[in-house]
Amino acid sequence: MNKTVISSDRLNERYVKIKHKSGLTMLLCPKPQFSSAYALFGAEIGSIDTTFKTGQDKDFVTVPAGIAHYLEHKLFESEDGDAFERYAKTGASANAFTSFDKTAYLFSCADNFKESIEILLDFVTHPYFTEETVRKEQGIIGQEIKMYDDNPDWRVLFNLLGALYVNNPVRVDIAGTVESIAEIDADLLYRCYNTFYNLNNMVLVVAGNFEIDTVLEVADRILKPAQDVSIEAKVPDEPRTVNQPRVEMKLPVAMPMFNIGFKEITGSKRENAMNQVLDEILIEILAGEASPLYRRMYDSALINSTFGSEVFAGRDYIATLFSGESRDPDKVYDEICTEIERVQREGIDPAAFDRCRKAIYGRYIRMLNNVEGVASALMQSHFCEFNVYELIDLIADCTLNQLTKRLNDNFSREHSAISIIHPAE
Amino acid sequence: MNKTVISSDRLNERYVKIKHKSGLTMLLCPKPQFSSAYALFGAEIGSIDTTFKTGQDKDFVTVPAGIAHYLEHKLFESEDGDAFERYAKTGASANAFTSFDKTAYLFSCADNFKESIEILLDFVTHPYFTEETVRKEQGIIGQEIKMYDDNPDWRVLFNLLGALYVNNPVRVDIAGTVESIAEIDADLLYRCYNTFYNLNNMVLVVAGNFEIDTVLEVADRILKPAQDVSIEAKVPDEPRTVNQPRVEMKLPVAMPMFNIGFKEITGSKRENAMNQVLDEILIEILAGEASPLYRRMYDSALINSTFGSEVFAGRDYIATLFSGESRDPDKVYDEICTEIERVQREGIDPAAFDRCRKAIYGRYIRMLNNVEGVASALMQSHFCEFNVYELIDLIADCTLNQLTKRLNDNFSREHSAISIIHPAE
Repeated sequence: MNKTVISSDRLNERYVKIKHKSGLTMLLCPKPQFSSAYALFGAEIGSIDTTFKTGQDKDFVTVPAGIAHYLEHKLFESEDGDAFERYAKTGASANAFTSFDKTAYLFSCADNFKESIEILLDFVTHPYFTEETVRKEQGIIGQEIKMYDDNPDWRVLFNLLGALYVNNPVRVDIAGTVESIAEIDADLLYRCYNTFYNLNNMVLVVAGNFEIDTVLEVADRILKPAQDVSIEAKVPDEPRTVNQPRVEMKLPVAMPMFNIGFKEITGSKRENAMNQVLDEILIEILAGEASPLYRRMYDSALINSTFGSEVFAGRDYIATLFSGESRDPDKVYDEICTEIERVQREGIDPAAFDRCRKAIYGRYIRMLNNVEGVASALMQSHFCEFNVYELIDLIADCTLNQLTKRLNDNFSREHSAISIIHPAE
Repeated sequence: MNKTVISSDRLNERYVKIKHKSGLTMLLCPKPQFSSAYALFGAEIGSIDTTFKTGQDKDFVTVPAGIAHYLEHKLFESEDGDAFERYAKTGASANAFTSFDKTAYLFSCADNFKESIEILLDFVTHPYFTEETVRKEQGIIGQEIKMYDDNPDWRVLFNLLGALYVNNPVRVDIAGTVESIAEIDADLLYRCYNTFYNLNNMVLVVAGNFEIDTVLEVADRILKPAQDVSIEAKVPDEPRTVNQPRVEMKLPVAMPMFNIGFKEITGSKRENAMNQVLDEILIEILAGEASPLYRRMYDSALINSTFGSEVFAGRDYIATLFSGESRDPDKVYDEICTEIERVQREGIDPAAFDRCRKAIYGRYIRMLNNVEGVASALMQSHFCEFNVYELIDLIADCTLNQLTKRLNDNFSREHSAISIIHPAE
């Protein structure tokens, strides 16, 4: 067992990183001043992982879209009941989620931590699927997909991703399609499971009121050492250019909705994580509430308070998105592009840089206010091959030159697209 | 069966209101352009309903804090399993919530609507509690309460409500306390159930892709006619004055957090609902993103983007809350009070009134973009003895004089309080 204490002088915070003998990495952050604990057990498999092999496999396998999310649903089942029933006895509140590039199983509790962490480690490491139980899930997930189809926020986003990306699987709904999930069977689920749920590639994060020794005692008992295998996920061959500059759709909404995206140059996991925080500062400067652009558009009623921006980044993709409602989305698009070009020409205002760097720094610090935020930040940065304190130092220490370079190299009208939902008559 | 079509010329929308022979009111809003449906089955019992009787009871009963929420948890159970297991077979996504003044059971689905609505109507109308099943829930709800205690957003709010209110039960956590829930037993749950879950006082709302006849067919089969009884809930005798003007606490947060509240004069359900939308326009004028106050505080870094405001209103309570983070919460408090006094003196800017009325109108219209929003708005307004279109007309037609009167009669430093969470050293 290899144990390291990771600490931040800046924040006066610390956590323990342990490489357990089973191969599992644990990030443990006891915070006795809280009364609850929050645990996340994560695997680096998301909806984009559709073509992969282990070092031991001869050939790549391509699996149906949505399989990571399907696997998440099915893991909760075992031969004798489901994990939610077991959690009901400990009183923990449990859940799971699948994103584009990872899957996580989680619980929070105020009592019976030991019993709950035992359930978590046990059910995630004991898959049980039969053709029949797999088939049963199709109706449930099929409905989930159709319900998202009714959500205009979801549609306007995926229409944009389909416009920005030619091949990258981020363009497909995380849950897949009704057609793709019909192809999922127990064999494919086991193939995914055996590739991505190897303890050497997973992480267990716990934050809050708990004892490190409790976690180790349960892990020693439940986790069997796993052979360390390498995973090769096929990186999609994605051009710099967008798939199409514009996509429109009609839905029963009251006012036109838009998503505008700037496709950026993707790098390693670490580079994308670093560039994500730099871009977050940059878009706060360009289009944050206090920016001249925002105030001009807001005061002329071109945008309303639904306007927002975010950096959409993960393994093998990074883009910056602006979203909202407008009577004239094309005018918003033009205003944003024009402002980007102006700042590229005239340079970033140093006072705005200073203000926005502080705002983003505050946002990251705020995430660490509660146990859920601490655990999520630890997992997120681990999968990006960072530690969370490095990311926060990066924000504190970033320079105007770094942002200028991001702005000049990555933001252009040419590599952008707009998605609009018009009100149906 | 009494059937009325309620429609809005302004919105070109309609729904059907049915008084079913069982006594249940149904608000049914078919929207075939969606592929999913969303159903809400609501009872007018919330955490504030702690002292009540029916017309048939001799004496008022006072029940422990948190019983409405406890009842919500227990209703999911029946003699042969729980409702979630039944929903798992239809593939619907089900949930429930308890607020200060109501409880609702809900599901959304894209297929098997008939089977899912049958489960909903069946389990809510068939309570099953034994002393043993009731006792089992204490650990689960006790943990839920303790987990909320770790949440600084929750603490800063309830500290404020405790400062604003002397007797009104809104000052107590919706889930109660670990001590209060220890007093809950099966008899008390049945007493609550038999009082508040009478079909004559409940509402079923469905919006989205479904057939009205399906709902009626299932309701005819499952719902037994209920005797129409009156409910008397004891209105808490609440003074106009606040309990204490200031409450402070230390928690592990990065920056001081605040909630500032203005206690207003409560009226009937209909009056409070009407005043809520008027106040929403008013606080958008006073402290919305485009207001001079907001921009002054934001530009001087006194507030950050976490700043927000809301009207906290329901049966027998109405207050306006401002929340956020600040290095100097007292200065924010003073700035807000000073701005209120300035506008009381100088009058509301007509241009700001016009802009903010449109912004709030847009916010309400936006809620109707999706089936969840439509159903929630229908239920919410039904319990306020409004129909949702009247509320929207109210916003469209409101006048500057109405707002001026609200501002002058209800907003004063004297009837306000501040709650602050300081960072623990």
